[in-house]
Amino acid sequence: MSKINVSIPQGTRDFDATTVKKRQFIFNTIKQVFELYGFAPLETPAMENLETLMGKYGDEGDKLIFKILNNGLDHENKKASATSAFENVLIGKNDKNLTERALKYDLTIPFARYVAMHHTKLTLPFKRYQIQPVWRADRPQRGRYREFYQCDADVVGSTSLLNEVELINIYNTAFNQLKIPVTIKLNNRKILAALAEICGGVQHMINITVAIDKLDKIGIEKVVAELVEKNIATQNIEIIKQYLSINGNNDEKLAAIKNLIGTVEIGKNGIDELSYILKQTYNIKNIALDFTLARGLNYYTGCIFEIKAEGVAIGSIGGGGRYDDLTSTFGVPNIAGVGVSFGIDRIYDVMEDLQLFPEKISQSSKLLFFNLSETENEIAFSTMQQLRSSGIACEMIFEAHKIPKQYKYAEAKNIEFVVNKIDSTTGLFTVKNIFSGETKEVDYNDLLILVK
Amino acid sequence: MSKINVSIPQGTRDFDATTVKKRQFIFNTIKQVFELYGFAPLETPAMENLETLMGKYGDEGDKLIFKILNNGLDHENKKASATSAFENVLIGKNDKNLTERALKYDLTIPFARYVAMHHTKLTLPFKRYQIQPVWRADRPQRGRYREFYQCDADVVGSTSLLNEVELINIYNTAFNQLKIPVTIKLNNRKILAALAEICGGVQHMINITVAIDKLDKIGIEKVVAELVEKNIATQNIEIIKQYLSINGNNDEKLAAIKNLIGTVEIGKNGIDELSYILKQTYNIKNIALDFTLARGLNYYTGCIFEIKAEGVAIGSIGGGGRYDDLTSTFGVPNIAGVGVSFGIDRIYDVMEDLQLFPEKISQSSKLLFFNLSETENEIAFSTMQQLRSSGIACEMIFEAHKIPKQYKYAEAKNIEFVVNKIDSTTGLFTVKNIFSGETKEVDYNDLLILVK
Repeated sequence: MSKINVSIPQGTRDFDATTVKKRQFIFNTIKQVFELYGFAPLETPAMENLETLMGKYGDEGDKLIFKILNNGLDHENKKASATSAFENVLIGKNDKNLTERALKYDLTIPFARYVAMHHTKLTLPFKRYQIQPVWRADRPQRGRYREFYQCDADVVGSTSLLNEVELINIYNTAFNQLKIPVTIKLNNRKILAALAEICGGVQHMINITVAIDKLDKIGIEKVVAELVEKNIATQNIEIIKQYLSINGNNDEKLAAIKNLIGTVEIGKNGIDELSYILKQTYNIKNIALDFTLARGLNYYTGCIFEIKAEGVAIGSIGGGGRYDDLTSTFGVPNIAGVGVSFGIDRIYDVMEDLQLFPEKISQSSKLLFFNLSETENEIAFSTMQQLRSSGIACEMIFEAHKIPKQYKYAEAKNIEFVVNKIDSTTGLFTVKNIFSGETKEVDYNDLLILVK
Repeated sequence: MSKINVSIPQGTRDFDATTVKKRQFIFNTIKQVFELYGFAPLETPAMENLETLMGKYGDEGDKLIFKILNNGLDHENKKASATSAFENVLIGKNDKNLTERALKYDLTIPFARYVAMHHTKLTLPFKRYQIQPVWRADRPQRGRYREFYQCDADVVGSTSLLNEVELINIYNTAFNQLKIPVTIKLNNRKILAALAEICGGVQHMINITVAIDKLDKIGIEKVVAELVEKNIATQNIEIIKQYLSINGNNDEKLAAIKNLIGTVEIGKNGIDELSYILKQTYNIKNIALDFTLARGLNYYTGCIFEIKAEGVAIGSIGGGGRYDDLTSTFGVPNIAGVGVSFGIDRIYDVMEDLQLFPEKISQSSKLLFFNLSETENEIAFSTMQQLRSSGIACEMIFEAHKIPKQYKYAEAKNIEFVVNKIDSTTGLFTVKNIFSGETKEVDYNDLLILVK
């Protein structure tokens, strides 16, 4: 038997027990909050038809979609079509004879595909959450993986701003429960549209938005340079600089933005929306208007959110916003919605950094019975069944290992209590807390109380 | 915008909210039992290196592995190698230049790969469970999917038969909790080996096992015909018929099998193992020795299990057994273990058939506030936040829909209680149970008690 190189694909990860439990803690916390707010789960397959995904993420996105090779290419009768298919692939096209399925690239397009397929039967508003892996053939680097989870909640089929209010409450509740201090940043694409309008016209919106979006990373001077390069007039760049320098508390910012763009209809509209949302979320202290927030080149049209973790140097750990059109690419127009996303991998990193995971999260069994004499082992084995029926996770070493090796097993598995002696006449258990070193002799009831 | 054909790949499924919740109910039940028994979770990536998977499932299996097309094939500098790669594919070989990753086909090989990669650091025995999707390019048919979940628990690095006892207890506890009546069928490969030995020699073991494995499907006469075809001597076929006709209770079966093969060393060994396991599981009434159980052509070497659901016409809903060698294919020999698997899709079908899912499982929100007058809506919105902070999942209709449409939403989402009137002077809520039709006027505290 030849030894082969044992590894996993670049950019993918195995999750050991502790990591799975920590990730589950994050998933379950967020999931429970989604459900408190009336969101229900949806799961879509890992694979989608290639035509469902292609053309939805731009040219760069298309290249990063993992395509699945059709099966049966080696069959004689498929050779001809496969050969021509391959010629297509060589000139950069995909071909159904070579590949017609792909791994999903995000949760939004499969959700849109689901809504488009079922829109006649769905009761609107449709409130769904989805926590599933996605795959991207990106170059792997620290914090960027080829397989990673996304965690989204969306409401479609309702234009009420109370949905935005609910989603802000969801963010606030979820991060409170995870104990991560955050700022919920809030802006509105309509304000960015108004800014473009007074800075030369809506045709500049993309250039202005793209430049503003880089402010955090490249600083104001380089943003200005980019605006110059994009032929934004000097007096308009001055307005943009003024826009970007708005600060103070939310009321002060609202006053300043009103001064700057409040005369433009769409701007006034955006400001009204923000004012309403702020009024409805008065009880949440950590919301900050941030007019520099742009959320890149995506499909948002109204309010946009982004979550910044306080006290940790890391990018945003969540984001979202309102969009006018989810499904028209699948032939079903006029389905508007608003959604939020949680960045699971970054939330994980923040919780590690700030040591926010519950202390005992990596424990599996609460109690370990050592392998001792035959009589003790028999008592241990039946006691173990009794404890389990009371909901206590416990286990026993079945091999007659030396005692130090048995302690090592308990330590490696982070098991708090071990029973290292059983008095078969009195039925008393000698139980040791391996963290504190404390040893007690207890009867069954006290053992149960101790480990519960 | 052209309307495109919206569909999902053949053999894959979307899971709506109710289905997700029912599946989660099964997963969580089994998971909790695994953890009670000291098993800890593991997750491996969807993708494995192609070389990790190929050659592990037989020629037929290899063909059913979904391979992932390498990215960047359309780049000029990859054309040459890709062309030669493609020629390899056309003659039925895979080639690293075309594909070097694939979707996992089961959970066992990735688990073996994980153990092989980390065996120097793992504390043995290593008890892991894994609940994840796998992919097979099988022809889709009723009950057979191209993407489906497997749910496995294995102990590796321990030869003690108490592991088998624990796994039987896990099966028993899990199916008790799911309320599925089952028979846990038990056999031992050593007994099949002994049967082969007295029927012409171990070289016949595969033929005999394969034939016996078909007994349920094809009946005794066709099994005999197959044995004749495989050149098993007539007097040996008589022994096999005698073997297959063993019946009675477990003690009677043990006595009969002792008579038949108890003189062969490996058979005696297998019988001793079964006797020991039966003794240790005396409290479980639904274990049945079944010497016709063979578990196909896999790698089992000792005890084998299979779960039959009672009162439902469906194949086995679980199975497993002991194996001598998990990882030698990855260059790490001598890691023995024993494992069980739960057939999630069939368990789901059985629970639907027997109506075993909890009645209210498809409920998301407990309570819906109707959209009423502006004053009522304000009270509703803040009451909703209060209820959520007490853990009550609830929601509100934000659009001013007509009342019948609001009832329809409650019905479609299976929401038990609706608030359809709020007295703003007294603060009393009129709440209706839409299942019973009963209506009450209650204050906040009684509302909380009612929906809790």
